[in-house]
Amino acid sequence: MTGKSEEDGCAVVFTPDGKSLAVRAGTIILEASREAGIELDAVCGGVGKCGRCKVKPDGGFQTVASSLLTEAEVRGHVVLACQTVVTGDLTVEVLPRSRIGKHQILTKSLEDLPGPLSPWVRKEFYTLPPPTLGDNLADLERLRRALKRGAVSASLEVLRRLPEAVRSGRWNVTVTLTDVDGADEITRVEAGRTDDRLLGLAVDIGTTTIVADLVDLTSGDVLATGSDYNRQISRGEDVIARMMYAEEGGAEELTALVRETIRSVVSGLILRESERSGRTLASSDIVAASLAGNTVMTHLVAGLPTEHLRREPYVPAAFHAGFPRASELGLPANPAARVLLSPSRAGYVGGDVVADVLASGMHRSAGLTLLIDVGTNGEIVLGNRDWIVACACSAGPAFEGGEVSCGMRAMDGAIDRIRINDDFTTSYHVLGDALPSGVCGSGLIDLVAEMYSRGIVDRKARIQDQATDRVRVSDSGSEFVIESQKNLEQGSTSDLVLTDVDLQNLLRTKAAIYGACSTLLRKTGENLEQVSRIVIAGGFGYHLDISRAISIGMFPDVPLERYRFIGNGSLGGARMALLAARGRQEMNDIFNRMTYLELSVDNDFYAEFSSSLFLPHTDIRRFPSVPAERASGEGSL
Amino acid sequence: MTGKSEEDGCAVVFTPDGKSLAVRAGTIILEASREAGIELDAVCGGVGKCGRCKVKPDGGFQTVASSLLTEAEVRGHVVLACQTVVTGDLTVEVLPRSRIGKHQILTKSLEDLPGPLSPWVRKEFYTLPPPTLGDNLADLERLRRALKRGAVSASLEVLRRLPEAVRSGRWNVTVTLTDVDGADEITRVEAGRTDDRLLGLAVDIGTTTIVADLVDLTSGDVLATGSDYNRQISRGEDVIARMMYAEEGGAEELTALVRETIRSVVSGLILRESERSGRTLASSDIVAASLAGNTVMTHLVAGLPTEHLRREPYVPAAFHAGFPRASELGLPANPAARVLLSPSRAGYVGGDVVADVLASGMHRSAGLTLLIDVGTNGEIVLGNRDWIVACACSAGPAFEGGEVSCGMRAMDGAIDRIRINDDFTTSYHVLGDALPSGVCGSGLIDLVAEMYSRGIVDRKARIQDQATDRVRVSDSGSEFVIESQKNLEQGSTSDLVLTDVDLQNLLRTKAAIYGACSTLLRKTGENLEQVSRIVIAGGFGYHLDISRAISIGMFPDVPLERYRFIGNGSLGGARMALLAARGRQEMNDIFNRMTYLELSVDNDFYAEFSSSLFLPHTDIRRFPSVPAERASGEGSL
Repeated sequence: MTGKSEEDGCAVVFTPDGKSLAVRAGTIILEASREAGIELDAVCGGVGKCGRCKVKPDGGFQTVASSLLTEAEVRGHVVLACQTVVTGDLTVEVLPRSRIGKHQILTKSLEDLPGPLSPWVRKEFYTLPPPTLGDNLADLERLRRALKRGAVSASLEVLRRLPEAVRSGRWNVTVTLTDVDGADEITRVEAGRTDDRLLGLAVDIGTTTIVADLVDLTSGDVLATGSDYNRQISRGEDVIARMMYAEEGGAEELTALVRETIRSVVSGLILRESERSGRTLASSDIVAASLAGNTVMTHLVAGLPTEHLRREPYVPAAFHAGFPRASELGLPANPAARVLLSPSRAGYVGGDVVADVLASGMHRSAGLTLLIDVGTNGEIVLGNRDWIVACACSAGPAFEGGEVSCGMRAMDGAIDRIRINDDFTTSYHVLGDALPSGVCGSGLIDLVAEMYSRGIVDRKARIQDQATDRVRVSDSGSEFVIESQKNLEQGSTSDLVLTDVDLQNLLRTKAAIYGACSTLLRKTGENLEQVSRIVIAGGFGYHLDISRAISIGMFPDVPLERYRFIGNGSLGGARMALLAARGRQEMNDIFNRMTYLELSVDNDFYAEFSSSLFLPHTDIRRFPSVPAERASGEGSL
Repeated sequence: MTGKSEEDGCAVVFTPDGKSLAVRAGTIILEASREAGIELDAVCGGVGKCGRCKVKPDGGFQTVASSLLTEAEVRGHVVLACQTVVTGDLTVEVLPRSRIGKHQILTKSLEDLPGPLSPWVRKEFYTLPPPTLGDNLADLERLRRALKRGAVSASLEVLRRLPEAVRSGRWNVTVTLTDVDGADEITRVEAGRTDDRLLGLAVDIGTTTIVADLVDLTSGDVLATGSDYNRQISRGEDVIARMMYAEEGGAEELTALVRETIRSVVSGLILRESERSGRTLASSDIVAASLAGNTVMTHLVAGLPTEHLRREPYVPAAFHAGFPRASELGLPANPAARVLLSPSRAGYVGGDVVADVLASGMHRSAGLTLLIDVGTNGEIVLGNRDWIVACACSAGPAFEGGEVSCGMRAMDGAIDRIRINDDFTTSYHVLGDALPSGVCGSGLIDLVAEMYSRGIVDRKARIQDQATDRVRVSDSGSEFVIESQKNLEQGSTSDLVLTDVDLQNLLRTKAAIYGACSTLLRKTGENLEQVSRIVIAGGFGYHLDISRAISIGMFPDVPLERYRFIGNGSLGGARMALLAARGRQEMNDIFNRMTYLELSVDNDFYAEFSSSLFLPHTDIRRFPSVPAERASGEGSL
């Protein structure tokens, strides 16, 4: 390690990207990577707590020791980018799993609208009588006269373009109208009669992933769907870390990052649809947008303060922030376009959950539905057409790749299904055409279920050291070897293992979800027999084997036919609100009818959670389909 | 004259200001003066047509000959700043009358409101129950619950500050509400119980002058009044010149200049009121604004295009541009504050005329009222509580100092009253403690009346060369010497004279006003006997001797007691709309009821105008109070 003084510029090269830049001596490598445009995974927000931003620097650097690195990693000169300072010229090799890359993001959603197609905006064509000295109404008032409505408003942005638009179309104009809280507003005026296609945007703003649909509002068709990681991720994996980052002066940066991600996703959609349709589209052709996200994401995209959301009693600035214009949110759309923000119900039950409910249709059903959305946070909703109760449980990111040493998101290289064979070797399926580099949520559930059924863990999910020689015991505890280093993706520095610590994190997460479901039922005086349907929403859903999730006691033990996946309900609900007046009405109704149950200080929840810290549960009678004692593997791949 | 190549920087010093700057060789002196922050008068927009931007350069310059300069001026090295190019280092002496300076601007207006005090915005105080885990409504919804109203909206700007405001006041909040088209909007939230004073702004945006009132909305009191020249003036004196400047790429500059003027006036008001009241005020304390201006000014302040306003059939982008926020108009007020824009009725009958009518009360009167507003443009309104007809006449700026060689605005040094003695010398009154440097509108009317009554001009306003030895004949026509150079303000380069050309301009202006009045009466089937009141509005009013204006045939010949001055009706009307719900309602009613009569292509108007090109009129019977033949002076000072 060579040293330089603070004044010197140090040349840093990131491999295998080949990106280089000059930084001041003293710069933290994680920061240098951001400057270089390389997004390293930093679950904890870069405070040395998650151990995910592993890199191999070579040259001038100074690092601090970390208990999150294995001995092999230390020997292999692996360091945490957030704990290492540049002191001279150096090369930094980014380890594959440290990188935020492309992955499989769920975009499928319900197609059935809650009512007839009646989009939030519509186009109308008018031929206006040209003004004369005898009929010299102003352009706006001339248009209003043709519209034959009372007070139709228009923003200054629209008025600025109006004179040119009406004249270049020789007084033939296509007017885009948006229904803002019951009153029409002119949000665009185009010259001549433009084609009927009317573009809208539905966006699910997830903590981890942002998914957007480009929608033809006239037909209701989704023209293109795109997604990307929320660029905020490297500033903290979950909403708590993001809010802390915001409070430390990063609020504007987070707002910029989420808006930037949306812009980038939408650019891709516009490009693809332009190519597909053979006509040149621009973001200004998007005349309406519908956004659904959790409360923190909604606040950040709108630039609202999150400071008080993070502290008891977790109060948002607003549940319903009105209908801002696209220009106010930096959205890639016509500046005067209005934005429908799905209303939040509580600090931890956001507009995404309201949209989930809308997409599920549970609010229209006589029978009782339990909706479980396991995203970065877990939200549970119970209800029917008469009442709706919702709660949030801090499930944690264990099933999204956080807090688990071998965990990763559902991207190329992730093991999404796995089986432990009779000889305790593993058979697995890897996403993409890749060697494995980690295990994603559905794979982790498989793994816990398999380890339990093979007797590798006991009912408390503790590893049994003598169960197999694939169990290793070190100072920091026991670990099960899933796959050895040589069979992993190139660049992997150690075997793929699941540790005692990982298992306890997974146990807590599944206990939080099941405990929340039980608590909701108990508080409402209902029981599982009354639940006619369990809806699984969120990106987690499609990769998941429900029977395995039941076998570890994560989901309630009811016949599988009662389960239903709705995929990305947040996106689906946002789209429904954009496309149907009934959808918009129902979104408000759901918001108004939804009761929020705060679990963080609830004794019932604490009891239910504690009882769930077993495989599958303390009270085994709750899981009649799970054999009381499982000794040999029955898992099938 | 020394020469430099284009690449060189030339040092230019303006005297007596002492301002210096470096400009490229080839820069026009008028432009250099703008860069130096010196506002030269340029009625014509800097195209060499008005001859007002006179300067005396010394050093490197190149000028073109101008017929607008007298022989004496040419001998004295006077040039037009807009027709002279910098070619090397030079000193530029700015002649006193070329400068736009402080002057007497009329700000008085009606005090009587059209209904009970009910300001557009009001403050309400609430103590909110602090949120708990059991009552964790969001801040906005908590506030809404306390307000006990349905949908009360709030902009993102308000929401961004809301969490801090409610908490720092320990859940005691003062809420400012604005009535936007019948629905309440939260436009400000302050911590704790703030004092009741609620500040609003009423602004008259004149082509020449901007006048603003800082208003206490709780009491209705005007706390301070301020005014300044519209900084657009040097880009053209009248609205036509401004629109031409806008079309040549200067639109954004004009918008910036008018907003800059408003900001500067309001800064002064805030400073004065802070000193007077002993408490520190900020522009963010202004929570509502009401603006009235002609159609062009309203368009420019809102950033709307004026291109089509300038061409037949003179169509605005909008009559009523809604209620934009202060931030959208760059107004010095709370960014979320709403702005009430007085609606325009036609391209040449703007929100200022609608406000004039409101201030005059003529729309509530059973008797017929004729309203005459002689500003930079002339607008005439006839009507009563049943109907209102308005028209505009391109009176031209003759009475505001334009198009008349000795003309100037009503500022220090202006002769505002004048009498021609038996020996044809003059006695006069000068505004301010100054020697005369020109004649303002009321002085010009006196002068024409006196010259007619003394027989110096005939009924066609042609100078009689033999009338007195104070008449001089030159190649360009005859002129009457008002005062000789030696008795004028220092720096004056020639005698103060009124020429044949000046007289014809004044004659056309007075004929346009009288012709418009006659046409309105004729078109509506009314006559002067039916008119119970003639209201004179605008800055022109207070300096004016009505009997003189009648004697030259500018105003109708009715008993003087029927005349009434209302001063700045535009400002008064804007303030009434801000202070009384009835004022806002009536402003809309006036707009809806007002019929616009286009005179520019009207044969009746042309006939009336032509008949008025005499002193006092072709048909002398229309002016029974004016002696048919006036030979000797009866004027009194």
